[in-house]
Amino acid sequence: MRLFQFILFFFTGLQLLKVQAQEKTGYIPLTKQERQKVELLLSKMTLEEKAHQLASFYPNANKRLNIPHMQAGECLHGVVAAGTTSFPQAISIASSWDPSLVERVSTVIAKEARALGIHHCYTPMLGVLRDARWGRFEEGYGEDAYLVSKIGVAFINGLQGRGKNRFDKDHVVATAKHFVADSEPLLGANGAAVEISLRSLHEVHLPPFRAAVEEAQVGSVMPAHHTLNGVPCHINTYTLNDVFRKEYGFDGLVVSDNNDLRWVQERLFATESQEETIRKALEAGVHTELAFKQTWADKRMYGPPLVAAVKNGKVPVKLLDDAVRKVLEFKIALHLDEEENPLGKEMTELQKGTKDADVNADVFFSQIDGSLSSPRSNYKTVLNNPVHDALALEAARKSLILLKNNNLLPFKKSQFKKIAVIGPNADTIRLGTYSTQQPKHFITVKQGIETAVGKNAQVLYAKGTDIQHPKDTQLAEAVAIAKEADVCILVLGDDDKTVMENVDRDDITLPGDQDKLMQAIVATGKPVVLVLLHGRPAAIQWAKDHVPAILDGWFLGQETGTAIAEAIFGDLNPSGKLTVTYPRNVGQVPAFYNTLIPGRPRMMWGTTEGATYPFGYGISYTQFKYGVPKLSKASMKASETVFAEIEVTNTGKVAGDEIVQLYLRDDISSLARPIKELKGFKRISLRPGETQKISLPISSRSLEFWKDGKWITEPGSFTVMMGPNSEELKTIKLELTQ
Amino acid sequence: MRLFQFILFFFTGLQLLKVQAQEKTGYIPLTKQERQKVELLLSKMTLEEKAHQLASFYPNANKRLNIPHMQAGECLHGVVAAGTTSFPQAISIASSWDPSLVERVSTVIAKEARALGIHHCYTPMLGVLRDARWGRFEEGYGEDAYLVSKIGVAFINGLQGRGKNRFDKDHVVATAKHFVADSEPLLGANGAAVEISLRSLHEVHLPPFRAAVEEAQVGSVMPAHHTLNGVPCHINTYTLNDVFRKEYGFDGLVVSDNNDLRWVQERLFATESQEETIRKALEAGVHTELAFKQTWADKRMYGPPLVAAVKNGKVPVKLLDDAVRKVLEFKIALHLDEEENPLGKEMTELQKGTKDADVNADVFFSQIDGSLSSPRSNYKTVLNNPVHDALALEAARKSLILLKNNNLLPFKKSQFKKIAVIGPNADTIRLGTYSTQQPKHFITVKQGIETAVGKNAQVLYAKGTDIQHPKDTQLAEAVAIAKEADVCILVLGDDDKTVMENVDRDDITLPGDQDKLMQAIVATGKPVVLVLLHGRPAAIQWAKDHVPAILDGWFLGQETGTAIAEAIFGDLNPSGKLTVTYPRNVGQVPAFYNTLIPGRPRMMWGTTEGATYPFGYGISYTQFKYGVPKLSKASMKASETVFAEIEVTNTGKVAGDEIVQLYLRDDISSLARPIKELKGFKRISLRPGETQKISLPISSRSLEFWKDGKWITEPGSFTVMMGPNSEELKTIKLELTQ
Repeated sequence: MRLFQFILFFFTGLQLLKVQAQEKTGYIPLTKQERQKVELLLSKMTLEEKAHQLASFYPNANKRLNIPHMQAGECLHGVVAAGTTSFPQAISIASSWDPSLVERVSTVIAKEARALGIHHCYTPMLGVLRDARWGRFEEGYGEDAYLVSKIGVAFINGLQGRGKNRFDKDHVVATAKHFVADSEPLLGANGAAVEISLRSLHEVHLPPFRAAVEEAQVGSVMPAHHTLNGVPCHINTYTLNDVFRKEYGFDGLVVSDNNDLRWVQERLFATESQEETIRKALEAGVHTELAFKQTWADKRMYGPPLVAAVKNGKVPVKLLDDAVRKVLEFKIALHLDEEENPLGKEMTELQKGTKDADVNADVFFSQIDGSLSSPRSNYKTVLNNPVHDALALEAARKSLILLKNNNLLPFKKSQFKKIAVIGPNADTIRLGTYSTQQPKHFITVKQGIETAVGKNAQVLYAKGTDIQHPKDTQLAEAVAIAKEADVCILVLGDDDKTVMENVDRDDITLPGDQDKLMQAIVATGKPVVLVLLHGRPAAIQWAKDHVPAILDGWFLGQETGTAIAEAIFGDLNPSGKLTVTYPRNVGQVPAFYNTLIPGRPRMMWGTTEGATYPFGYGISYTQFKYGVPKLSKASMKASETVFAEIEVTNTGKVAGDEIVQLYLRDDISSLARPIKELKGFKRISLRPGETQKISLPISSRSLEFWKDGKWITEPGSFTVMMGPNSEELKTIKLELTQ
Repeated sequence: MRLFQFILFFFTGLQLLKVQAQEKTGYIPLTKQERQKVELLLSKMTLEEKAHQLASFYPNANKRLNIPHMQAGECLHGVVAAGTTSFPQAISIASSWDPSLVERVSTVIAKEARALGIHHCYTPMLGVLRDARWGRFEEGYGEDAYLVSKIGVAFINGLQGRGKNRFDKDHVVATAKHFVADSEPLLGANGAAVEISLRSLHEVHLPPFRAAVEEAQVGSVMPAHHTLNGVPCHINTYTLNDVFRKEYGFDGLVVSDNNDLRWVQERLFATESQEETIRKALEAGVHTELAFKQTWADKRMYGPPLVAAVKNGKVPVKLLDDAVRKVLEFKIALHLDEEENPLGKEMTELQKGTKDADVNADVFFSQIDGSLSSPRSNYKTVLNNPVHDALALEAARKSLILLKNNNLLPFKKSQFKKIAVIGPNADTIRLGTYSTQQPKHFITVKQGIETAVGKNAQVLYAKGTDIQHPKDTQLAEAVAIAKEADVCILVLGDDDKTVMENVDRDDITLPGDQDKLMQAIVATGKPVVLVLLHGRPAAIQWAKDHVPAILDGWFLGQETGTAIAEAIFGDLNPSGKLTVTYPRNVGQVPAFYNTLIPGRPRMMWGTTEGATYPFGYGISYTQFKYGVPKLSKASMKASETVFAEIEVTNTGKVAGDEIVQLYLRDDISSLARPIKELKGFKRISLRPGETQKISLPISSRSLEFWKDGKWITEPGSFTVMMGPNSEELKTIKLELTQ
């Protein structure tokens, strides 16, 4: 019997037997006895032991009281650890518009994470995307708060589990980040100051966090790196306490990122002393501090400086206790004491930082045996589950987007005898950021096509250009094989240096010489399929105007090449749709469809206004015909729900999935409203000739807006819009009465 | 005796004789008797007559009561009327950093305006420039609120007059516009929604308007076309009443632009009826409505709809009276009854709108005899004053900026025998927006150079390219004459279609094929001087890297070619400095130097971060050496003023003007502060070898910031920076004590 258990037993005596039968209550679900256990532990801990609990990533087990270690990790689209299943990148899987798929994916991720000894994931990123220059664009789900909310809630529910499964042995704590408005920094520069209106804060950036609390009881949240309207997010009592806790009801863990607490003082110059920084962070309810490297751990604010500040009276011990309590609650809720090695691994020399400069994320995460986490003994069995691989393929299939098809796709299997596969992304691992560097496996586009054609065709290959170091000889070689081939598959996009955290751009053209390569290949006159694997919207107007077919995968995970080859040869009918606008060029950034009503019509010199592809766009190998939208009632009270209905028919010759979208507009309002806003969507499957009636609810939640600190509705006329994307919409009027 | 005067006489009797001796009081300076006159008139007017007073531009005289007509007009950089003096465009003259010059210029503009029968100018534009895509960029003074305030105040004081001269027969009412934050619309699209933080509103966009009230008692203000954080500026009681009137003390006239009141309802959908629109606009204190065309006049909200709304009780007559009172106060303050034709001209058929579609601003403004204004009989004498022309040349000289000089400039008069003058802006009128189409005269760069060289050199000319319709033959012709010449003057930039109101761009490269032309000319190997005449920052990094000399004039007014030729041949030593940052490309927009402190260091892929030229930049034919900055006191209380001092020496061989700049940074602050902010500047003239000690005051006004509705200072350390531009600065610390 462990001391941990012993103490509990000593105090609760025979009531112990009732513990497991007792009802779990609270935001972090615990029984009354479990909460008593937390208080008992707190009462036994020294100041130093308490502070030690606030170090995330870093060993935070306590041997004296047998308090287990809670290991944090990253799992944006798969656990960042060698041998795990790699799913489509966040922006990619969001393009499936399929929350149930997302939840199944994150359920698998949680299972793999937990098997690897990771209990707390710093995922998902709920930033509503506004700026294509931002290096973290690919980590988000899209430019619409409603869609981000739905996908985010699904991802969190999968990670954390629902009902009885919540925080069980196959689930982890999710972290909504970065709180808040990380996605709208000045110039798209990661961490730059964010200055926005309160409307934008409450209507654009906060709703996914509100949904994460209300619909998924997200366990933790990470404040963002910037100042929000002047106040660092880590000491922002308005956003963290007034809004997130009091208004939304959050009562979980608030975790800070590497150096962020220190940088409140040393980079943002918002505080004058360590004591002030610590006190303000604790007052804002920031509970833990990430310390990824030993050198950073040595500089923790919540380490010795916190202990000293409590000792000299500058920081009330209650603030420290509140933070520790939250950590202990999760350790108990997650049953960490029941893990095989609850105290975690000892640090290796590497982790202790003797080679600190070399300790980067790749090393840290990818070497399971060298990490601080303690994998369960069966972890290889968990990881090598073929069900996980099948799900990765399903996710890739449902996320792939067809942007253009001028009768070129799909190929018949024997249509082309020589197929050129060209491009810097055609035959290399492209998983996007926050990925393991050693995925379980990865199918490149070239491999996918080779497998698909077998011996029916010859596959020629040329890299064409190197994104970082372009050479004209590569381009000439590519043109030569294009001329030799009957058709070209051109695979372009980003690599892991052109898009990642803290790597922004001031351009959105395809990086390097890729546009030049594309133009040279198209100039050969051979039919071309452009395949995009990328992390931010690319300026592809030229491709739209000149290339007959465009498939867009963002980053599709380990089955990238399989899904793309299936689509090219017609085994898969693509069905994903863009969750962001593709602007023509960087001068049209920020690009998003739901702009506020303007005071003047826009006129521009030298360009047309429209985006290359609008939000919600994606086509299919079949055609969908939309009927006339109807309402279950033409008018409603705020307490009611009406249904917007439309019939959709597959008028083509193959089966396909369609994503039906519902938008609303408040026709007259005391505050300017967006020209349209997504308020519902549904992914459906239709056989050729089949018709389905889609019915999407409209409630006051769909009609409300934020004004002077409150969510309100104003009676009057609304325009209801339904259709296949944010531009091709059919309308009907709805009246909201008093 | 006019009825107007008669009524007054009847009521005031013998007191009339005292009127002129009485003290004028109030924001609009009037005697007690003059105010009584206003009330008397008001009491005699019918509802229809009252509403008629609220039509600006449109005839608003009243024959029955002999109330004179008040004519509005535009005078951004000269009166928009044929035969007037054309001064450098707003962004250009601001580059002189010389408020006293600006005030002398606007004094002349007022004189010409008044002679032409214009009493009220819709100028200046005080928007703090944030977005180079915006078509109205050239109408502003710069990206810094302090600088915009100083230039704006000077311009207003010149227009309105000071002390006894205020609103006298040679001055007009100025209009600060567009209230507020017009310069930061989404995507730089004119009139698009503006959503900004309250800090940005109060610290960036409002200060020039605050200064316009506090330092120049600006007579009128024009609300902007957009919604500001959701609320149309025309019904925004927060900005107009709470801030502008109550906090700053404004008590002048609020004028609305064409259609703006109607569009509150019909484009911004913020109101449900004409009555509601009218009532809310009057409650926000919007007094008049511009009706530029007959068709628009017929749709005035303040016309028959206002009369009807008062009659049916939807709008209190008091609101109407308040608006009319303000108009009458100005008519009396301006002594309009003493004009030669106080009731104004009758409309011609043209103005009545029978050919409405053809009635554009050019026709309206440029044909004095056809306009509604009633020029004084001596107007030609006023306009043809050689002093005005001399001032236009002085202004051009002081506004011209030298950006680069690799030992090429100035030319000796006999240095080159064949000079090629090339470019679409080399030999055509380029005045920028809101200009007369028939200036008194205009000297092109080609003409200026021909005059300068006389018979000493041959001047070759080629247009090189047409901005709107480029042809490669033009380019070939230009290359041919470049090869023939000893040196090339390349004159590029904007025309009147690439930059103007409601014409935005999503790019900032030189429009059309001008970059191609530049590269072709440089490729000839001949030395090249690039001269820029343009209306928004241009992406000229390539020129900076490859062209030996760059002169930047923005638009320099009627003496463009004279000033540029003088600079090229050394008769003028350029001294202007940029009032905006020149970003490398449109992906670096918004570009401004005074960004808030960031939470992360910026890293970008594929580019370096820095701007091509920073705010405050400009060089000279001589060199200025800066000493070490000193403070009159190392610490200060908020009630005190300290002086920042620095010695500047002309170490070169020619006389020159230098613009010495002072920046401050609040080192530690409870709200994020800019990395630096301009808080003082001085333009000085130095002979070769001469040293001057510059002393610039620092008061609590320099140190304060806006927090939770108040302007406050926080004790602590500040960094004081002095130098020739926003990047080359020397620092010293200042302590603010309790």
